[in-house]
Amino acid sequence: MSQILVLSGSPSATSRTAALAGHLAERLRSGGHHVADVRVRDLPAEALLTADATDPRIAEVVAAIADADGLVVATPVYKAAYTGLLKALLDLLPQFALAGKVVLPVMTGGTPAHVLAVDYALRPVLSSLGADHVVPGWFVLDRHIELGDGSVQIKPESAAPLYQVADAFEAALNARPSLARVS
Amino acid sequence: MSQILVLSGSPSATSRTAALAGHLAERLRSGGHHVADVRVRDLPAEALLTADATDPRIAEVVAAIADADGLVVATPVYKAAYTGLLKALLDLLPQFALAGKVVLPVMTGGTPAHVLAVDYALRPVLSSLGADHVVPGWFVLDRHIELGDGSVQIKPESAAPLYQVADAFEAALNARPSLARVS
Amino acid sequence: MSQILVLSGSPSATSRTAALAGHLAERLRSGGHHVADVRVRDLPAEALLTADATDPRIAEVVAAIADADGLVVATPVYKAAYTGLLKALLDLLPQFALAGKVVLPVMTGGTPAHVLAVDYALRPVLSSLGADHVVPGWFVLDRHIELGDGSVQIKPESAAPLYQVADAFEAALNARPSLARVS
Amino acid sequence: MSQILVLSGSPSATSRTAALAGHLAERLRSGGHHVADVRVRDLPAEALLTADATDPRIAEVVAAIADADGLVVATPVYKAAYTGLLKALLDLLPQFALAGKVVLPVMTGGTPAHVLAVDYALRPVLSSLGADHVVPGWFVLDRHIELGDGSVQIKPESAAPLYQVADAFEAALNARPSLARVS
Repeated sequence: MSQILVLSGSPSATSRTAALAGHLAERLRSGGHHVADVRVRDLPAEALLTADATDPRIAEVVAAIADADGLVVATPVYKAAYTGLLKALLDLLPQFALAGKVVLPVMTGGTPAHVLAVDYALRPVLSSLGADHVVPGWFVLDRHIELGDGSVQIKPESAAPLYQVADAFEAALNARPSLARVS
Repeated sequence: MSQILVLSGSPSATSRTAALAGHLAERLRSGGHHVADVRVRDLPAEALLTADATDPRIAEVVAAIADADGLVVATPVYKAAYTGLLKALLDLLPQFALAGKVVLPVMTGGTPAHVLAVDYALRPVLSSLGADHVVPGWFVLDRHIELGDGSVQIKPESAAPLYQVADAFEAALNARPSLARVS
Repeated sequence: MSQILVLSGSPSATSRTAALAGHLAERLRSGGHHVADVRVRDLPAEALLTADATDPRIAEVVAAIADADGLVVATPVYKAAYTGLLKALLDLLPQFALAGKVVLPVMTGGTPAHVLAVDYALRPVLSSLGADHVVPGWFVLDRHIELGDGSVQIKPESAAPLYQVADAFEAALNARPSLARVS
Repeated sequence: MSQILVLSGSPSATSRTAALAGHLAERLRSGGHHVADVRVRDLPAEALLTADATDPRIAEVVAAIADADGLVVATPVYKAAYTGLLKALLDLLPQFALAGKVVLPVMTGGTPAHVLAVDYALRPVLSSLGADHVVPGWFVLDRHIELGDGSVQIKPESAAPLYQVADAFEAALNARPSLARVS
């Protein structure tokens, strides 16, 4: 049983990325993990943008990240990279906030032309935060995320590879104790 | 005579990056250009983080970017990349907001280990915004930026290459009319 | 009238990238420029891989790059980046070999998922070589490059944006004298 | 006991990178692993540059990579990235040649300004090859690698963090069986 935090970084109130993040959170919960789900847009904007880590709700998320064994980091691709909103939260974390953790990067976007943003934009930032294991991520096309009333459906061509990276993320989490022995 | 906008993206109230940006703005003004100087942290946080381009002050900056011939984009390196604050502003610009413009990227940081963030993190985002000409940028070490009371001094070892890229930026701005004829 | 060198970096003997590079060379020639066309795979392999810049044919290409006003750098996407073959040539150039030059990056690939390799992989390397102006590049899908007997056809959906970046490259070359006055 | 391949990608005959790679190979051997050590420059140049995977010595290395549980990939930074020589070998591997493997990226260079090449240039290529776990890498300054006659000394300020990533690499290799159960 791992402690997992699912972060989603879309500025939009009706976000497919957040829906996808919620879907992954549910899946991980049904795998027996303790999963919290945070939308960065729900955090206090002023505190985020002035990097004020003393704000109580920011401090709570920072603590939740510190306590987590694993993180799912989900963001739409904006301007060939992660959103500024997501990065604003990552910016106020301690330098090695992801040390000892397993991280699953997930991006969404309107065109396959943005696939490489996962490995060229998001992953280097996660690595700089000291993550021990950033597992292979996935990019999901917006149109493969279908929003119903309160539910979300992932089209099979995206669901299969997405669940595969999610399973690899769980496997890496389960392998962590043996990793921890050495590092 | 060009219209230039100098953006700085540090979340800090007493920012060396903003001081450096102001210094460059002054230098470009003395070169005869019209220069506006915007600190992203002074914009309304809520509007920025929810990507609300209808906010009047956000709309004003978006219009100023549209009107500018050139932009200086200055940001500290946070977590191996630009700040989320800066990116939050870039995120709400139209897709090709920098088309037809000349852009000078400038980054600051505490260690030379972050130099490549200029070309691997910031430049691709500026390119994705359709910038015609992102001139060679520069990375300035924090300790080379000395803040006095209202003044800023750049240590010679950083000032020389910084002024060189600033001169190349001006030259590229002056060359723009001939570029414009074709594109 | 500018001096232009078109480099193509595919290891394949029957390369669509090389055909595309040849097509661009022809187009630039008909614009009145002096254009040389070099396939890196035709250079002596041993000298390339041991970075032996004294080899006469390597030295000739290095000199041609030094003499050029502009370069077109064309490569297929292999493993999410430029080819090792192309990079082996770039590796043995002097540190600022592209200073004062205009560069057009062009990549080809089998899937749109590799589009961002232009700006995240190739452009930073060209920037590190001191290029003054790396103009917006383009990614062409393999299946949009149709090889006939000695001829090449680019499908319209790729030809239009490709010719647009090629025109912007020519415009930037023509604007160079005014740039050169200042730098 | 794992099967490990140590690749080094410097074109130089007297390479600090190769010496460092050999040093790491020795250290891993003394940890009880089976370690092979390959300098890409010793492979047939013509076959490498024309991506001829049928060449017997190339085929042998490709097979050794397929058989390995883990890889150390060592390269100097040339032009802000890995060498073309190293990339030429990676280019002729099958698309997911690193699936199921643990990889340790190591770069060397003359200036700390190139540190980020590990995460922005080399790591995305290793990810694209399907590596399950690219552990945190390290950048070693050339002047911290001291070559004696047949021996190599790493200065303590580089040795400590280097051995730490090497230990994490071994720990990840040892954790592999539990990973393999799921994926």
